[in-house]
Amino acid sequence: MSLRGVGADPRCRCIETESRFMGKLIKKVELFPPNPHCKDTEIIATLKHGGDKICLDSNAPWVKKVIDKILANKKP
Amino acid sequence: MSLRGVGADPRCRCIETESRFMGKLIKKVELFPPNPHCKDTEIIATLKHGGDKICLDSNAPWVKKVIDKILANKKP
Repeated sequence: MSLRGVGADPRCRCIETESRFMGKLIKKVELFPPNPHCKDTEIIATLKHGGDKICLDSNAPWVKKVIDKILANKKP
Repeated sequence: MSLRGVGADPRCRCIETESRFMGKLIKKVELFPPNPHCKDTEIIATLKHGGDKICLDSNAPWVKKVIDKILANKKP
């Protein structure tokens, strides 16, 4: 569990980030820009099969690559 | 309204995409990679104030720029 409970908690959502490659397991990626409740961008991936949510490390090179792949209309 | 109703509809979520610049209004961006229900990547932005959801055009240069900015830990 790398996220806080869902709700109106006015803090960062991510407690820790996953840096291992998870590209092939990703069903959806959510990007939250810096905002008054959290100074850093948060990237939350929802995984296929089960729908677990994990926080991704925006500095991990594979994360940027996976997002570029998705934007290029390819499967991660 | 550029999205179908939320639910288990096994088709693409986006009916049409917004190509006008919306960067400053974006609260969250969701990326859905190509999948068996939709052959193209779908990018759905949730807007500040009101939380409206709009589909973004993955080919619009500003969309890629906004996502790169978010990944670089900056506000779009």
